[in-house]
Amino acid sequence: MNDPAPRPACSGFPWLVAASQLVGLAAVVVTGVWMGNYRGGFAWDGSVREFNVHPLCMVLGLVFLQGDAILVYRVFRNEAKRNVKMLHGSIHLLALVISIIGLVAVFEFHKVAKIPDMYSLHSWCGMATVVLFSVQWVMGLLFFVLPVASAWLRALYLPVHGFCGMMMLVMAIGTSLLGITEKLLYTIMPTYFKFTSEGVLANILGILLLCFGVLLCYLITREEYRRPPNPEEESLSIHFKTLTEGKSPTTP
Amino acid sequence: MNDPAPRPACSGFPWLVAASQLVGLAAVVVTGVWMGNYRGGFAWDGSVREFNVHPLCMVLGLVFLQGDAILVYRVFRNEAKRNVKMLHGSIHLLALVISIIGLVAVFEFHKVAKIPDMYSLHSWCGMATVVLFSVQWVMGLLFFVLPVASAWLRALYLPVHGFCGMMMLVMAIGTSLLGITEKLLYTIMPTYFKFTSEGVLANILGILLLCFGVLLCYLITREEYRRPPNPEEESLSIHFKTLTEGKSPTTP
Repeated sequence: MNDPAPRPACSGFPWLVAASQLVGLAAVVVTGVWMGNYRGGFAWDGSVREFNVHPLCMVLGLVFLQGDAILVYRVFRNEAKRNVKMLHGSIHLLALVISIIGLVAVFEFHKVAKIPDMYSLHSWCGMATVVLFSVQWVMGLLFFVLPVASAWLRALYLPVHGFCGMMMLVMAIGTSLLGITEKLLYTIMPTYFKFTSEGVLANILGILLLCFGVLLCYLITREEYRRPPNPEEESLSIHFKTLTEGKSPTTP
Repeated sequence: MNDPAPRPACSGFPWLVAASQLVGLAAVVVTGVWMGNYRGGFAWDGSVREFNVHPLCMVLGLVFLQGDAILVYRVFRNEAKRNVKMLHGSIHLLALVISIIGLVAVFEFHKVAKIPDMYSLHSWCGMATVVLFSVQWVMGLLFFVLPVASAWLRALYLPVHGFCGMMMLVMAIGTSLLGITEKLLYTIMPTYFKFTSEGVLANILGILLLCFGVLLCYLITREEYRRPPNPEEESLSIHFKTLTEGKSPTTP
């Protein structure tokens, strides 16, 4: 019995990354088409056209860019860790800024239209996601960029940081799906069950977001796609830590 | 510098499991209270009271029981693998049966009320989850209970099986949240934004389901909570495999 068969390292990785990018970009485009073609387009005037900025920003920032910010640790797993860390933080920051623009859009629209804020499950989940996302970004900066935390505290926090990142991506996607359902029922309830083109397009957007989430989670959790441990980097990290604590690098 | 500090194995595990069970049961109870007190209770007569069986069955079967079926591998990680495997499969089967009752309830209600099926994002996601869940159960039976797959094929499939299980739990929770939003907008749209008790209760149900998902995913993915490898079980498994393939157990 020839058991077990040898497997190539990182099998299917480039195809899965390509698929995730295609699906993620398709979700952004479909959101733009839905808001642009069916809901009157975009503006920044307090009207429903300002509301339309909200879904586009959230799908682009909190889903697509958040996903890609996580993915850089897999795609550039053989590059210098410091550079990848900076790229990770920068894309997350961009995602956060775009998400905040998206939030401002919906709150301004609510204010002009005199619609109460924060009553729906979508808004509760969405606000929790954005707040936790901001906290996670600051924690990441404190723990992994600025020399604030001790080495063992960083090691303790790293898996929690990774887990929370994945959960936030899942929450962002779940919240987007809730937003799609809310928008459809508030606008086309009398015709949604007739499989109208807008309803089907929005459902397809939901499925695209779901597929993006599944692909990303698979790429993040698969052991063989992880960044290989680099003893040189580890020793450099300890060296840096020792220096910042004012001790000789040769101290064990 | 005393680095790194020793950590106790499985820190916080019993508390996290207890929290997950409390939150999960609370979600089932709140679903029952919502349907029972606000939506007219339960019956099996094709009326909206038959529809009310649907959310209760899905939250109980596809969320709570599916989650617990996964969790048995962590809670009983020191018990004999064969017994745990049987428990895992049995709870999943119970979850599947309850989910199918929940599906029959909604399809029968739709038939009597002449409401079209499968038009909403909730129904698309839900049907995908139940179909994939059934396929996953059969695949689990073929790969890990019946001696169908070779040892290396089982080893190859195991992480995919685990990943798909977690994704299905997440999909079940996401679909439940979509169902909550749909139900609220179809029934209390004119008052939902006034923070009526029904709306707030249903939102809290959504948050409970979300918390159950986060707790379960943490318990499943945390490395220190995994079942420790047991060389005796591994060798028994290979022995069994060799016997079923009609070769001598001493063959490498």
